[in-house]
Amino acid sequence: MNCVLSVAQPEIIVPKPHQLKWHEAEMGAVFHYDLHVFDGIRYGQGNNRISPIEDYNIFNPTQLDTDQWIQAAKAAGCKFAVLTATHETGFGLWQSDVNPYCLKAVKWRDGKGDIVRDFVNSCRKYGIQPGIYVGIRWNSLLGIHNFKVAGDGEFAANRQAWYKRFCEKMVEELCTRYGDLYMIWFDGGADDPRGDGPDVEPIVNKYQPNCLFYHNIDRADFRWGGSETGTVGYPCWSTFPAPCSHHKRIESQKDQIALLKQGDPEGKYWVPAMADSPLRGANGRHEWFWEPDDENNIYPLTTLMDMYEKSVGRNATLIIGLTPDPDGLLPAGDEQRLKEWGEEINRRFGTPLAETQGRRQRLTLNLNEKQPVNYCIIQEDIAKGERIRQYKIEAKVNGKWQTVCSGESVGHKRIAHFEPVETTALRLTVTQSVAVPEIRHFSAYNVTLK
Amino acid sequence: MNCVLSVAQPEIIVPKPHQLKWHEAEMGAVFHYDLHVFDGIRYGQGNNRISPIEDYNIFNPTQLDTDQWIQAAKAAGCKFAVLTATHETGFGLWQSDVNPYCLKAVKWRDGKGDIVRDFVNSCRKYGIQPGIYVGIRWNSLLGIHNFKVAGDGEFAANRQAWYKRFCEKMVEELCTRYGDLYMIWFDGGADDPRGDGPDVEPIVNKYQPNCLFYHNIDRADFRWGGSETGTVGYPCWSTFPAPCSHHKRIESQKDQIALLKQGDPEGKYWVPAMADSPLRGANGRHEWFWEPDDENNIYPLTTLMDMYEKSVGRNATLIIGLTPDPDGLLPAGDEQRLKEWGEEINRRFGTPLAETQGRRQRLTLNLNEKQPVNYCIIQEDIAKGERIRQYKIEAKVNGKWQTVCSGESVGHKRIAHFEPVETTALRLTVTQSVAVPEIRHFSAYNVTLK
Repeated sequence: MNCVLSVAQPEIIVPKPHQLKWHEAEMGAVFHYDLHVFDGIRYGQGNNRISPIEDYNIFNPTQLDTDQWIQAAKAAGCKFAVLTATHETGFGLWQSDVNPYCLKAVKWRDGKGDIVRDFVNSCRKYGIQPGIYVGIRWNSLLGIHNFKVAGDGEFAANRQAWYKRFCEKMVEELCTRYGDLYMIWFDGGADDPRGDGPDVEPIVNKYQPNCLFYHNIDRADFRWGGSETGTVGYPCWSTFPAPCSHHKRIESQKDQIALLKQGDPEGKYWVPAMADSPLRGANGRHEWFWEPDDENNIYPLTTLMDMYEKSVGRNATLIIGLTPDPDGLLPAGDEQRLKEWGEEINRRFGTPLAETQGRRQRLTLNLNEKQPVNYCIIQEDIAKGERIRQYKIEAKVNGKWQTVCSGESVGHKRIAHFEPVETTALRLTVTQSVAVPEIRHFSAYNVTLK
Repeated sequence: MNCVLSVAQPEIIVPKPHQLKWHEAEMGAVFHYDLHVFDGIRYGQGNNRISPIEDYNIFNPTQLDTDQWIQAAKAAGCKFAVLTATHETGFGLWQSDVNPYCLKAVKWRDGKGDIVRDFVNSCRKYGIQPGIYVGIRWNSLLGIHNFKVAGDGEFAANRQAWYKRFCEKMVEELCTRYGDLYMIWFDGGADDPRGDGPDVEPIVNKYQPNCLFYHNIDRADFRWGGSETGTVGYPCWSTFPAPCSHHKRIESQKDQIALLKQGDPEGKYWVPAMADSPLRGANGRHEWFWEPDDENNIYPLTTLMDMYEKSVGRNATLIIGLTPDPDGLLPAGDEQRLKEWGEEINRRFGTPLAETQGRRQRLTLNLNEKQPVNYCIIQEDIAKGERIRQYKIEAKVNGKWQTVCSGESVGHKRIAHFEPVETTALRLTVTQSVAVPEIRHFSAYNVTLK
């Protein structure tokens, strides 16, 4: 009798097919728009959550132009755009037949406006993938507070059950009226359908099988990256110890925020990181919504590029928060900054000095001549999983390889920045991996930093 | 020095000018119409108060004809008609700009329906005075329970204050859009503006100075008559010990219900009685709303006439509850019964054998010939107050006066029914009064009771 020794191969976690578009996008925008944009005062989230808007007919974006919104996002490099169909007021930016607190209620466009439709149409017109954000955790009109109705006994039990169905019906409307969606985003998660949360996942599965689902206790197709700074940690792995994002299910983790920022190379679930930030975050502001007098609080380009490199460049997808104003336009300053941002990303990384790819531990990139280099980009074919655990990049200087940088996670994209080096070739060496690295892209850049 | 002795005259309480139309009307109708009429199941008030309607687009009265409603009420003798602009669901039957849960929200008439307007227009077309009923005590959509929001702390305090303003704004809309209103009726009262109730009285005063106000803790232009049987007690005085109706303010009264039914001849406030009943109250039913399978539960004519005599005939105003169906029509059986009722009232009391009036203690009514009599009607000129405290009616039989009936309160109208007597004359004697009786009408009838 022969004894056959079977050595277990490490299980390599890979994304579900519909998650690939999350990584491919790299950048997207989320547009926040709700009643309080029109109230002329600065937003206070705490108060907004507990006090219904006094007069919802302040909603009157007379120059609404979602084409302009989407063009502005596209100019920055966004590949998808998400609209808050509802946020914390509970007001719906569409013609809902299940939520009366919606654009049917207002005088604007004689009660016939549908900004979700306008938004999705503009996305399709400009080749941007449309997503929808649904706020159900708070609903100031209905008195919903952190998913919960107020009150006790049969009253509260009935009302909670009703509210769950109310949310499910809104989600069904949004999943069935606007064609294929890139993403549906439940603000603060859709909680636990076995508890206070609506059972929305089957609805999304049924009507939008290829849609990114973000998120409830059972599932997050990507995870919040642990801050609203537009950055994630490093290393940043797409694998995660739970199939959900920042939910009580992972709150037992010792350092939940660090876990969200970095992921876990041993995690059994593909839950890649999302880095989000509002564009208007300078000078101590942090505004997801348009507010008066924030024109000067748009992040400077240097901050945005830092954000880009610490999110997209660290294997996360970056979502930038944009703030249409009460006229219905993205203000000129924001539009201009987005354009500058897209141009700067393109200036830095649009044209590599050289690029290569390959399925092996080591890739060499020969430059035609000796020249300065200060950035490399590495991309794994993540359909095969994140295989690289450690790598180093060396530059050939005077005939000798010298290390210019090293790192751990690569994943969809790693932008490695290092001190400028005059070199004739660069060499990527994967010093640790769980399987043969599938490197789809390795490139070098010489970026003049202004 | 002369000593002048001043004997205090008893203060005679009189109605405010706008209250006279309450008495003059004698009969009115209240039409209840709300979402649950369309749900195909029998109404359960308790559940309705705590569970929002699952799908408000069931509201679809494809044959709505408020002309037909009003003509039916008019045929019974109603002089005013009231519509539940909102009831306990919180759904508004108009184009509200402050309550999104209204006819703007539904597909019916492409969200442009306004049943309050249709109703008021029909009233004016047929010479019926329009009134509006506003339900604010319950609002199942918003989770309002007996005027109160649920929850605690700042959340509840903010929400309660907001809900009060929400109600005030609805009332302002209803008081300013539809011309002069006969009555505004706050379901269950509008509570105490110093507590959980909205401050609606100043709004009604400002925009509808001649409108009957029913009611809050401070004011009731009439009072609930203590039952929903369509009857009041006897005697039944228009004076009352408090300016409000059935409110906690009078709950300290030993027998509040008896007080509501009978009033108080010594009361310092003119708060006359209202007797209300649904038309569909036979066979143990008591339905303010249309429900399936209640066609056979319309009160028989004998019951309705008994109701009439024990309300209108006892110095109260009778309000009959009518139930438009899901098609938007008052069902044929109800319409027919109302017509029969009006005809029967007219048959009994439309043509007196004789009538007289006068400002004195005793009035004699000579008949042209000896004939049977079994009813008399007495009316005081209540603009001068209810002066009569006791009276008797005698018939002249064979040259001698014999008492056929006696009573206490008269007020706007007393219908006195007695055993038929063959007589040549009738004599009303006021045996006790607080001032010289102002008798505007004394008449006799011979009614064949079928």
